[in-house]
Amino acid sequence: MFRRSLPRFKSLTNLATLKVHGPDGKGIVAACCNLLDRKGYEIVGSEHWTDRIENLIFLRIAFDKEPQIASSGGLLDRCQNAVETADATEQALQQLCRDRDLAFQLNWRQERAKVAIMVSKYDHCLWELLLRHEADELDCDIVGILSNHDNLRPVAETFGIPYHLFPITKQNKREQERHEIQLLKDVLQANVVVLARYMQIFTQHFLQAFPNSIINIHHSFLPAFQGSRPHHAAFERGVKLIGATAHYATADLDEGPIIEQDVISVTHRDGVDGLIQKGRILERNVLARALQAHLDDRVIVYNNKCVVFGD
Amino acid sequence: MFRRSLPRFKSLTNLATLKVHGPDGKGIVAACCNLLDRKGYEIVGSEHWTDRIENLIFLRIAFDKEPQIASSGGLLDRCQNAVETADATEQALQQLCRDRDLAFQLNWRQERAKVAIMVSKYDHCLWELLLRHEADELDCDIVGILSNHDNLRPVAETFGIPYHLFPITKQNKREQERHEIQLLKDVLQANVVVLARYMQIFTQHFLQAFPNSIINIHHSFLPAFQGSRPHHAAFERGVKLIGATAHYATADLDEGPIIEQDVISVTHRDGVDGLIQKGRILERNVLARALQAHLDDRVIVYNNKCVVFGD
Amino acid sequence: MFRRSLPRFKSLTNLATLKVHGPDGKGIVAACCNLLDRKGYEIVGSEHWTDRIENLIFLRIAFDKEPQIASSGGLLDRCQNAVETADATEQALQQLCRDRDLAFQLNWRQERAKVAIMVSKYDHCLWELLLRHEADELDCDIVGILSNHDNLRPVAETFGIPYHLFPITKQNKREQERHEIQLLKDVLQANVVVLARYMQIFTQHFLQAFPNSIINIHHSFLPAFQGSRPHHAAFERGVKLIGATAHYATADLDEGPIIEQDVISVTHRDGVDGLIQKGRILERNVLARALQAHLDDRVIVYNNKCVVFGD
Amino acid sequence: MFRRSLPRFKSLTNLATLKVHGPDGKGIVAACCNLLDRKGYEIVGSEHWTDRIENLIFLRIAFDKEPQIASSGGLLDRCQNAVETADATEQALQQLCRDRDLAFQLNWRQERAKVAIMVSKYDHCLWELLLRHEADELDCDIVGILSNHDNLRPVAETFGIPYHLFPITKQNKREQERHEIQLLKDVLQANVVVLARYMQIFTQHFLQAFPNSIINIHHSFLPAFQGSRPHHAAFERGVKLIGATAHYATADLDEGPIIEQDVISVTHRDGVDGLIQKGRILERNVLARALQAHLDDRVIVYNNKCVVFGD
Repeated sequence: MFRRSLPRFKSLTNLATLKVHGPDGKGIVAACCNLLDRKGYEIVGSEHWTDRIENLIFLRIAFDKEPQIASSGGLLDRCQNAVETADATEQALQQLCRDRDLAFQLNWRQERAKVAIMVSKYDHCLWELLLRHEADELDCDIVGILSNHDNLRPVAETFGIPYHLFPITKQNKREQERHEIQLLKDVLQANVVVLARYMQIFTQHFLQAFPNSIINIHHSFLPAFQGSRPHHAAFERGVKLIGATAHYATADLDEGPIIEQDVISVTHRDGVDGLIQKGRILERNVLARALQAHLDDRVIVYNNKCVVFGD
Repeated sequence: MFRRSLPRFKSLTNLATLKVHGPDGKGIVAACCNLLDRKGYEIVGSEHWTDRIENLIFLRIAFDKEPQIASSGGLLDRCQNAVETADATEQALQQLCRDRDLAFQLNWRQERAKVAIMVSKYDHCLWELLLRHEADELDCDIVGILSNHDNLRPVAETFGIPYHLFPITKQNKREQERHEIQLLKDVLQANVVVLARYMQIFTQHFLQAFPNSIINIHHSFLPAFQGSRPHHAAFERGVKLIGATAHYATADLDEGPIIEQDVISVTHRDGVDGLIQKGRILERNVLARALQAHLDDRVIVYNNKCVVFGD
Repeated sequence: MFRRSLPRFKSLTNLATLKVHGPDGKGIVAACCNLLDRKGYEIVGSEHWTDRIENLIFLRIAFDKEPQIASSGGLLDRCQNAVETADATEQALQQLCRDRDLAFQLNWRQERAKVAIMVSKYDHCLWELLLRHEADELDCDIVGILSNHDNLRPVAETFGIPYHLFPITKQNKREQERHEIQLLKDVLQANVVVLARYMQIFTQHFLQAFPNSIINIHHSFLPAFQGSRPHHAAFERGVKLIGATAHYATADLDEGPIIEQDVISVTHRDGVDGLIQKGRILERNVLARALQAHLDDRVIVYNNKCVVFGD
Repeated sequence: MFRRSLPRFKSLTNLATLKVHGPDGKGIVAACCNLLDRKGYEIVGSEHWTDRIENLIFLRIAFDKEPQIASSGGLLDRCQNAVETADATEQALQQLCRDRDLAFQLNWRQERAKVAIMVSKYDHCLWELLLRHEADELDCDIVGILSNHDNLRPVAETFGIPYHLFPITKQNKREQERHEIQLLKDVLQANVVVLARYMQIFTQHFLQAFPNSIINIHHSFLPAFQGSRPHHAAFERGVKLIGATAHYATADLDEGPIIEQDVISVTHRDGVDGLIQKGRILERNVLARALQAHLDDRVIVYNNKCVVFGD
């Protein structure tokens, strides 16, 4: 089993994030900053954008999760204080947002996000995610790999990650999905499900179990070439660029909110095989960047679109 | 009227080009090279590609158009020789290609290509083409600008290029097209028609008059967002890149062979206006690059696709 | 003279911007937001970043410059109120920032920035800026063009912009610079000077007259190929990409703070002429983007670097 | 040990390549095509470029390595014929090129290229190469991994590739290099040595043992930021893009002929760690693309530059 021996990047887990969005109104940014400020949190970065057509506000604040409170007490006291301050902050935010009809998400990063990866037979996205994770580029734990095939088990074993096989047939799909949901929710406690070229189409039941938490990679520049075999269609059409699109999976196949897209040049010399090969490089990078944005809490979904704040 | 006063780039017009394509067969490249060689032409560049699935060959040869013939005569003799050699070459090529069922195009560049530009109200593509032309980046003469509106006449006048107004209504479209074809063919003797954001849809009649010679710019990454208002559709979909596509205009709107495509990043901050603004930069560059490839004789069309050889 | 007849983009001039930077400290973002809020200004966007190594804060807030004040008075009263509120805001900010040792810039956009362009013989950057300006992509007035040569006067006349000739020799350089400064400061009242491939090297005297206000375009990917003839050097080295760099001009030639950079692919087929031609496309786009960022008040300079906030 | 179980891409090994370069002259392309043609080889692609300033020709021909010879014999006869034809072709080419002072390389691809990889502690380039190899994107055998550290042995073991440890000190460098050369030449019979972030500087002795066969990746956009710690220097300078450069290693450190370069955007938010992380993605892709071009026989070196033909 491979275990990277280089010194790890300094963990960023001292940073908590607050995301707020909803109807715009007077003083929202100031109110949120004030609130964190008064509780003793040091704000280290923020970005906010107003959709002036829809009159909606989108706000993201990153702050040091350790409140700077004068304390004569020992470590225990300080921990106790920190917990109490966090609770009080959450309550105050609830009230602030309720009054203004705003949604908020507060991520204390007490523990790292738990990511489950679902794959079929293609391995390129899986390797990319596991290697970026191993290099500390993804701030999460990878808690399990689920597949409808057994062939990528050795990849999982390379990194010591549990591999769960759920063969899918027309007959057993709903039942297998139930098992998968149970595993993901109850056992792995996954917050994020990444479809790393998972080739099965989910039922609504599965999708609704993880709203805005399933990240899929589609091997085309959506909305061009929806559905299966986009590289064949791209070859037929004679395009000069091919793309890849990472999006949240929703009930409408290939129509979920787009997080990240990229393209690569192709020429007449590239047959379908060539497009597939060039596409692999795209897919793994686009998927990894989308997951990174999600894990950094830089994404807010609304109206089937994503606001993605800068890294 | 603006006239650029910088020293011009060395003309490339000493180079002629031969393009050949059709069923692959034994010794085609050698035969073509031999033929030019024996006639005294110095080959300075060539590229050939075989579509091994369709079993088709695509060949482009650039050669010095002055044959290197031992000649004791004066200038007149040499000119006479050159003309005779060119004729003989053309005949020999005709025979070579007829035997093998190949198509060929021989461009002696005795005179520069004659390009006509058609525009409506948007000026960005027109400026780009005229400025690149003025900077000697486009190896052609721009023989006229046709428009269904009068508002870009001052741009034409800036460069001293004739501007022809053809207002289009539902009633007069066919008749106006006839006049346009007459102007383009008989008066301007245009080889290439560039639709620089020309907003009228042509009848078959017009399109068939200029096969593989009308270059259109569509303001999306085709086949995504065909038809009108692609930036509005892109905004609605929440894409993270927008594109532009230059293609030969055919009877199927937005479905002609693609010459060149490119994309640019957009974010949630870009409204429709922002997409349109970013799109302008794309459109003018993609269109100019496509025209350049066409004028360099680097494009071969087949099966509704373009083979575009390297520059 | 060319005058664009399309409907103009909606002016953005209802937005004022506040930029703040300096030593980080508790509650700066909240304090600034509160201050604007209390004065009745609607904040429509903000971004802030903390350099945690140097312990510096960088903040940019965009807000509606019309305060929303309950007012029973007429238009005159409201104007009077607006002016008084702006003054009061400025004073309050002065105090807030003085106490914390912060620098701030408040741009009310009462009038558009005044941009002067300096050129020599190359026209591509000049055209790009004038055309983007004409298309309302640059939120400024272009108040004059200065050159050491007369050949681009027709470009200026195309857009009706005054053209000022200052021929430079070794002997008259200092004196001509004095005249240029006088023209720029006293007559044109320029806030920004754009060197659109201006080929003269300034004395310190000139540079110090416009701190962080002179934007230069260098035709290489700095710090590679500093100095003159970078394309020749790039050709010699056999690089596979060439670049362009827009930066604020400082006393150290080609070493000022970088605002924007980009590159374009080149191949063995590109001779020096080819690099120059491809470079032109780069230079004009990089320079225009840098000017746009500057005009949007998205740039803060420190430690010879630029913080460039998102557009 | 990981072993990919997907169906492999169709091997390209039925294609042989001929590269020719040297002083330009009449009829070289025709002569080479004729020669291959007469021996019964089907040419499936070719590209040729003339450096008209230096008057040099560069030619690459890809052809089916099985000659199409009328043969009534069995398999053995045909094999015998093929070998004899290849020998005769080689001799004829020798004579053709000797007469014209041309250099040629004929790659029959009887066996795949043998690639050895040298690494130190960073693993990202190593993984990329091994995974692309495993996915059949690199047409070679990876015959061994050499390192001055032991920590990447598990990566090698994941793919079942021998790992050879050569710890380097000031004292033992020359001796270790001798051992490495012996291993590479005599045991592994490597044709190509890839320095996948190998952090030792070689002596001339080592470099001369593998002319134009050692591919190095430098983590900057050369010639910017030569030498060590380029990301630190890039951070200090405040660049807006960082680069990576793959080149053949020569006696002049970081000055060898450049095969491939690419860049990625960075912002003020990227500290040195951020640059290093973004750089990793660049480095592994640039190195892999350079190796691919080398293995495809698409590179010809001259005058410390690389002609890289299209893929």
